[in-house]
Amino acid sequence: MLAVMHADSNLPWFELPLEVRDYELDIQGIVNNANYFHYYEHARHAFIHSRGLDFAAMHARGLDSVVYHAEIDYRESLRSGDRFTVRVRACREGRLKLVFEEVIMKAGGREASSARFVVAMTRGGRPVPVPSDVVAALASDVVDSLATKA
Amino acid sequence: MLAVMHADSNLPWFELPLEVRDYELDIQGIVNNANYFHYYEHARHAFIHSRGLDFAAMHARGLDSVVYHAEIDYRESLRSGDRFTVRVRACREGRLKLVFEEVIMKAGGREASSARFVVAMTRGGRPVPVPSDVVAALASDVVDSLATKA
Amino acid sequence: MLAVMHADSNLPWFELPLEVRDYELDIQGIVNNANYFHYYEHARHAFIHSRGLDFAAMHARGLDSVVYHAEIDYRESLRSGDRFTVRVRACREGRLKLVFEEVIMKAGGREASSARFVVAMTRGGRPVPVPSDVVAALASDVVDSLATKA
Amino acid sequence: MLAVMHADSNLPWFELPLEVRDYELDIQGIVNNANYFHYYEHARHAFIHSRGLDFAAMHARGLDSVVYHAEIDYRESLRSGDRFTVRVRACREGRLKLVFEEVIMKAGGREASSARFVVAMTRGGRPVPVPSDVVAALASDVVDSLATKA
Repeated sequence: MLAVMHADSNLPWFELPLEVRDYELDIQGIVNNANYFHYYEHARHAFIHSRGLDFAAMHARGLDSVVYHAEIDYRESLRSGDRFTVRVRACREGRLKLVFEEVIMKAGGREASSARFVVAMTRGGRPVPVPSDVVAALASDVVDSLATKA
Repeated sequence: MLAVMHADSNLPWFELPLEVRDYELDIQGIVNNANYFHYYEHARHAFIHSRGLDFAAMHARGLDSVVYHAEIDYRESLRSGDRFTVRVRACREGRLKLVFEEVIMKAGGREASSARFVVAMTRGGRPVPVPSDVVAALASDVVDSLATKA
Repeated sequence: MLAVMHADSNLPWFELPLEVRDYELDIQGIVNNANYFHYYEHARHAFIHSRGLDFAAMHARGLDSVVYHAEIDYRESLRSGDRFTVRVRACREGRLKLVFEEVIMKAGGREASSARFVVAMTRGGRPVPVPSDVVAALASDVVDSLATKA
Repeated sequence: MLAVMHADSNLPWFELPLEVRDYELDIQGIVNNANYFHYYEHARHAFIHSRGLDFAAMHARGLDSVVYHAEIDYRESLRSGDRFTVRVRACREGRLKLVFEEVIMKAGGREASSARFVVAMTRGGRPVPVPSDVVAALASDVVDSLATKA
């Protein structure tokens, strides 16, 4: 999946600029691995919000989103004072999954990390198809490009 | 307040044994200050639970608890592998406040830190008197001893 | 101390704009108390850096800084999506202490929290007088204003 | 890789019992995904320590360990009060990689999450073969079983 998405270089990215906070460093002076999860989650939520989606409103309709698989590659460490950008994009995989691809680019243009998060929508704890308005808001470009390939 | 409570050495302590986790260390190799908040909160909740109180049930009755003042003294650093005990006790201060006194003792018997958390109960966001069953469960010994002094 | 500093409204503030990240929320939907520590620490470090101080270089000279007392007042909760500004200023207290006063202002102009952190400089684990270049960089205005009052 | 390791049910597990701390919960009342990273890291370090390895001593010899790939599956949520056990075991993959397989089992015997962490040893930032004493301490059983299969 990652390979496919990388290959299609036309897909747009949402970008969120951030900087390292010193409390995120560990004893080796580098950002602790768990904090990448925080960066990636914060960027996903900013992306979702930027597309006009309101997960609180969906929750009121009984719909929740749940991450059930995560993969992270670590290429270069982040250190005190580093500035970086988190890139996010999403596609639908089958009827039940949303896949978020994310990349952390350091200020100098080098890739520090990349990740893939698989998310399901649930109602009353049971998976349901990703609603069409969510697909349209988050993933329309990707779905189009995949449809073109089919 | 701290002084008074220290002076009355008869007050019982609830004790929770813990150990440092390496992700809690910062670049200097010592536990980051913010993690003491986590230790103290976790110990308060364990203390409350040990007294048979159910804040979830109180929340269902519309009662919430809110920390509105915190003070922490740091005496000795905690490092990788350190084992320690968090001591907790509580008293009522006036009709509206619960005060939790907490101390972190290192395995060797030295005090690493002490703290004081002032908590209010609220209903619909407004402070209400601390319910008598909460006082009875958490703070009866202390209230008795203060009453004796009055 | 807080009262004195508040009273002297001429002291300048360093300001750092931030926003709530959803992973900082707790089960009540408000920012967990421990995360205010993170906000305050990050703002202090940004303030120190903005004044041209390099604590890494000081560390290489054998000088470390240690927080040994912290006080935080919580006035209003921070919630998902909230934007806020952390204000920081510092003064010297005696020869051995630096006091950082900090305030978190919500976007609408209301104070969410205020805090006071007492910091010592140490060499080989023992307190030493705050170096004059540190005082000059961080706290000159305040020291002047206090001197005027003496 | 996960499949192979699961298939060989004779491999021993190191086990670390833990419980959920309320500050680890998010607004949905379940443990935030990033905290699983903390649980897994803490259990790996406890496992390594239990085998008599001293990464601080290795660091003094110029050897560091770096996680460069992580995968986590989330099956069931962890909630306030939940007790669980983190299981850890390790094997060598090629000359350059250590693979840690980890599982979080809830108190009732259900699997909450499983994970795989790929670790490299580095000297001066460059990958080096995993030292034979590290392999012997962490991964001998697994290496034997894989050798048998070859």
